[in-house]
Amino acid sequence: MPRPDYRALLATAVEEARLGLAEGGIPIGAALFASDGTLLGRGRNRRVQEGDPSVHGETDAFRKAGRQRSYRDTIMVTTLSPCWYCSGLVKQFGIGTVVMGESVNFQGGHGWLREQGVDIVDLEDPECIALLRDWIAANPSIWNEDIGEDDCPHG
Amino acid sequence: MPRPDYRALLATAVEEARLGLAEGGIPIGAALFASDGTLLGRGRNRRVQEGDPSVHGETDAFRKAGRQRSYRDTIMVTTLSPCWYCSGLVKQFGIGTVVMGESVNFQGGHGWLREQGVDIVDLEDPECIALLRDWIAANPSIWNEDIGEDDCPHG
Repeated sequence: MPRPDYRALLATAVEEARLGLAEGGIPIGAALFASDGTLLGRGRNRRVQEGDPSVHGETDAFRKAGRQRSYRDTIMVTTLSPCWYCSGLVKQFGIGTVVMGESVNFQGGHGWLREQGVDIVDLEDPECIALLRDWIAANPSIWNEDIGEDDCPHG
Repeated sequence: MPRPDYRALLATAVEEARLGLAEGGIPIGAALFASDGTLLGRGRNRRVQEGDPSVHGETDAFRKAGRQRSYRDTIMVTTLSPCWYCSGLVKQFGIGTVVMGESVNFQGGHGWLREQGVDIVDLEDPECIALLRDWIAANPSIWNEDIGEDDCPHG
């Protein structure tokens, strides 16, 4: 079976990030796919919209995918390097591949996941980089809250 | 400020686990407390009840606590050693202390968290051990699904 076009899959995650931005939220989106590129679930960070710090793009996409028998062949596509919370999700459920739009604005646990055999792909996507960079510059306090940096000077 | 009585805090997590059991779910509960023992949020695993694999005891308690400015002084109390997903949550948000009822039936990332400076307390509670042990024996398939062990011989 041919590998799906990761850039095409990323478009769904970017769409989610842009939905979040339009809602006044943090523009990070994600989607979980089967190995053939079939969409299983998609989601976005909704800390601001729902006052819920547990909804990151990846955890939302995972939730929307419902109960799956195995995650080994699934692909988690996210606009940003997964934070430790989302990296822990990937490790616990054995998600085989993580495709990220960028790892410039933030680096979570993707290096740690790679060491443990997860296939990590960084698309270094300029749209993802610019989208989040501009948002962080305008909203440093919410950003620091989202990544647990409570004592950051921007706070 | 005196340290709260961890066994008293555990009672809330056990209450959640028993609620989950009564609902037909996996009996794992958790609660997040402020350093003085004030309850911030409580929750339980609801994979079965809601068909939602993203709701573990710890992530549910974290969600229920809403947006907090800092987690440094909070205490995550859980009936079971936190899985990697929940350990990632603890690391990302800088939760300072994890109190677990037991680590006999399952061991997640608590050793990894301890290496990184998180205060880890194992109460080795007989009630927690028996509650989950008996449930796993009766429901091995759901249990393996919850911990991502899709190819376990029990499956």
